[in-house]
Amino acid sequence: MTPEEEQVLEANKNFYSALQNLSLEEMDNIWLQEDWVRCIHPGWDLLEGWEAIRESWQQIFENTRFMRVAVILQSIRVEESTAWVCCTEKISSASEGRFDSSYVQTTNIFERRNGGWYVVHHHASHRPVGDGSESEEVVQ
Amino acid sequence: MTPEEEQVLEANKNFYSALQNLSLEEMDNIWLQEDWVRCIHPGWDLLEGWEAIRESWQQIFENTRFMRVAVILQSIRVEESTAWVCCTEKISSASEGRFDSSYVQTTNIFERRNGGWYVVHHHASHRPVGDGSESEEVVQ
Repeated sequence: MTPEEEQVLEANKNFYSALQNLSLEEMDNIWLQEDWVRCIHPGWDLLEGWEAIRESWQQIFENTRFMRVAVILQSIRVEESTAWVCCTEKISSASEGRFDSSYVQTTNIFERRNGGWYVVHHHASHRPVGDGSESEEVVQ
Repeated sequence: MTPEEEQVLEANKNFYSALQNLSLEEMDNIWLQEDWVRCIHPGWDLLEGWEAIRESWQQIFENTRFMRVAVILQSIRVEESTAWVCCTEKISSASEGRFDSSYVQTTNIFERRNGGWYVVHHHASHRPVGDGSESEEVVQ
């Protein structure tokens, strides 16, 4: 793995730390705060611009009591100042007394600014396989 | 729109032409044929490398009698030799006598090679909203 790929993976890891910690402050640090950044949560419409994306995280975090994300890295590609990563996430979460578990397929795109890598796009979608059985496995 | 953005949109348009024409030959021309390219069809696992991706298109095309795709461009970002595009697709298709219509949210990533732009990643996922009603609207 190249030093640049390691940096991108570190940024990707920081993104999932922010998610697990339900931390808007950490999201502030890892996203590029521009109008052209984009985000697609599983089953949501495309969100356009940092303001709308930040609001979505705030809403998700306010409605979640805990979240654990097991991330399997599937691929990474770095080309000059842009990088993209594909991951499978197994998300276990609790909200309003309800436990849930699902598999999500993700594409994360990063751009480099001043030596750091920032999230500029997050596309997450449910993987039908595993959804049902895993949900049953966790709810006890 | 910059000349580079126009080139990327042209490549994006060619991708959807290949899809509508159910043309493996057109897909051959628009994808970068490398091991590291990736593809996520709606509800599928990640496909890794051109060979697996080509087989998936072959399989989809063989099982589809016709396909019409209305594409709404939502965003485009070009950074040096990499570009990514977000679209909403309304796909109407027929296979084995069954008509179907669905909305899909897509992220397409391109890389520039020898002056041309090639697809290196396609992440498509169902948008739950519109799936049911639109399906009923088209099946008559």
